[in-house]
Amino acid sequence: MDYDGMFDKAIDALKAEGRYREFANIRRKCGEFPVARHYPSDGRPKCSVKVWCSNDYLGMGQNDLVLNAMHEAIDRVGAGSGGTRNIAGTTHYHVMLEKELADLHHKDAALLFTSGYVANDASLSTLVKLLPGLVILSDAKNHASMIEGIRHGGGEKRIWRHNDITHLEEFLRELPVDTPKLIAFESVYSMDGDIAPIKEICDLADKYNALTYIDEVHAVGMYGARGGGVAEREGLMDRVDIIEGTLAKAFGLMGGYIAANANICDAIRSYASGFIFTTSVAPAIVAGALASVHHLKNSSIERETQQERARTLKKRLGDLGLPVLENPSHIVPVMVGDPVKCKALTDQLLERYRIYVQPINYPTVDAGKERIRLTPGPTHSDADMDYLVNALSTLWSEMELRRAA
Amino acid sequence: MDYDGMFDKAIDALKAEGRYREFANIRRKCGEFPVARHYPSDGRPKCSVKVWCSNDYLGMGQNDLVLNAMHEAIDRVGAGSGGTRNIAGTTHYHVMLEKELADLHHKDAALLFTSGYVANDASLSTLVKLLPGLVILSDAKNHASMIEGIRHGGGEKRIWRHNDITHLEEFLRELPVDTPKLIAFESVYSMDGDIAPIKEICDLADKYNALTYIDEVHAVGMYGARGGGVAEREGLMDRVDIIEGTLAKAFGLMGGYIAANANICDAIRSYASGFIFTTSVAPAIVAGALASVHHLKNSSIERETQQERARTLKKRLGDLGLPVLENPSHIVPVMVGDPVKCKALTDQLLERYRIYVQPINYPTVDAGKERIRLTPGPTHSDADMDYLVNALSTLWSEMELRRAA
Repeated sequence: MDYDGMFDKAIDALKAEGRYREFANIRRKCGEFPVARHYPSDGRPKCSVKVWCSNDYLGMGQNDLVLNAMHEAIDRVGAGSGGTRNIAGTTHYHVMLEKELADLHHKDAALLFTSGYVANDASLSTLVKLLPGLVILSDAKNHASMIEGIRHGGGEKRIWRHNDITHLEEFLRELPVDTPKLIAFESVYSMDGDIAPIKEICDLADKYNALTYIDEVHAVGMYGARGGGVAEREGLMDRVDIIEGTLAKAFGLMGGYIAANANICDAIRSYASGFIFTTSVAPAIVAGALASVHHLKNSSIERETQQERARTLKKRLGDLGLPVLENPSHIVPVMVGDPVKCKALTDQLLERYRIYVQPINYPTVDAGKERIRLTPGPTHSDADMDYLVNALSTLWSEMELRRAA
Repeated sequence: MDYDGMFDKAIDALKAEGRYREFANIRRKCGEFPVARHYPSDGRPKCSVKVWCSNDYLGMGQNDLVLNAMHEAIDRVGAGSGGTRNIAGTTHYHVMLEKELADLHHKDAALLFTSGYVANDASLSTLVKLLPGLVILSDAKNHASMIEGIRHGGGEKRIWRHNDITHLEEFLRELPVDTPKLIAFESVYSMDGDIAPIKEICDLADKYNALTYIDEVHAVGMYGARGGGVAEREGLMDRVDIIEGTLAKAFGLMGGYIAANANICDAIRSYASGFIFTTSVAPAIVAGALASVHHLKNSSIERETQQERARTLKKRLGDLGLPVLENPSHIVPVMVGDPVKCKALTDQLLERYRIYVQPINYPTVDAGKERIRLTPGPTHSDADMDYLVNALSTLWSEMELRRAA
């Protein structure tokens, strides 16, 4: 066996398809977001760049309340938790954060995971064990972690066309009444920025007695009066059985969670291997998240500014004919439609303009739908935006990229 | 469908089997390990306890170098990384830590994951994709995360009897020469504290041209001149293809990793969904881990003290006839052999003696092998040990538990 050759071949295949990823090595500057230090891999000198693709959507990663809570937790309890949740790793911070998250979503309980990825993977796969015969009805554009969780559960599934409730109902109608069913979907889809018809999905769930599972990772902290997500904004939190969220995007830290009825959280807590057999999230992270969630429950200025920044950027790009994908969320996709040009565009942005944006190519999006994905937020000034818009417009012309009709 | 009833039933089943977990809510006191504040769930007043079951084996969770590195990273770059490794989430700390870990294990490269659990799950499942037809030969006592990774890969597997290289060779001999093979095992098994015959396994791997994958999560930081694990201590790091470790136990933080040849790390980096589609570990955690790994490369006093504490505790318990499971590692299992008594013992330890030890019952260990698992370390004083040994001996008599022959 030529193992080396096999590994090389797997890597070469990605390179041949133009999908080999090179990570940009950066270090953001606390207090100066979106500024970061860039460390080029080819030995060129370090330089300052402006980041336009971070998922720290509201800049909470540099919020003083959050940083102070982290500092304080480190001073009080040290670095790591030292164990799994069951063996010495449930700190008072974990208990408090789970209460705070349950309250955020008006649910009985919440359950913390080491990441949103693990929250989806562990919860969905475990639900299949808890509800024998469960059929999961999954939106076609669900995140990789949901797809993996459904696959790992090993149960039956139906993939309904993205946001197409007619297609969803076709599947629901076909399934026997006494078959347990779970509808799994996201609120804000992160690549297109479109939003699910949550109410209509909940109506169908009622009609066919299905459970509902919503991934709000690109919405928690950002939508609803207290940052409970799109389901909060639309008054629908009580109609969704399981709300999954992340602490790693708008809340500015890391980790993921679900919020649901007490017995659902307790059952997943008790049966999910990916929850049980892993060291709990470090106390400093949990303390920072607690401060962040609490702050965004009571402060809307970050959300409002982000929405204004997104609207403004979309309008300015649109006025210049740059093909912004229209959507009702804070996400600003600008379509390039070619993987090589998409990569070249972001290389030029970085090298000539010190603007850091990651190209989004297949398989993250379909071939032909390559794009850049801008994430404007409260830390991007008018001057930052002028500079970005001008850079993009110049490059669009130079590279002869398609403008909107 | 009565979903509520189904969730309740799943929880009731655990309660009926005596396996329902209640998490102890504690908060360790930085600078005073093993002291922690305990918050009883039944409303009794808070009190100070001594923790004897933490996996922060060397007390690095309160090491000043680690804490200072965390504070500094928070001040410099903020709270979370803000993205996946590919999209704005590769910080200079991540790059430096991967270099440090590669160096620790004398490998080309290393790859960071959000946890050791995810490192095993993502790496093992992805290896099946990278090496079509791969058969994984897995030790029967491998950790849940390895079992899940192997299962998620969906390939063929052979389970060899724990640490039994004769059985392993039987399987290897049966497999065709041109079938790719991977032998997956741990170095220190965390519940019994026994250690794998690493050299003999590597000899078999050479003979049958198999790859080797070792989980050293209960050994990194603690064995070998620089904390590279048991494989370092035995001069075998170059003979193991993939070394998996954690930052959450001896290193005192959270997160996991693999170290291996550059093309193995690159291929897993490029294909593993659980690596790609998740926010990277927060910079403060990575910075703390960097300080911890670096320190334990150059300082052996923590390792030596831990070994002395473990030897001393084993001897003292043995002298009193308490049934310590003999093993060559730092882990001190004391056998109870009954789930109800095991739980009652630890309840008594906590309530009467303010000693926090978690009972280890089925399914973590086989029925009849219930135990407490003590983790002595540099932060446990002679007085702490006196107090623990006396408490255990008193309870052993009162509860009429079996003493060693």
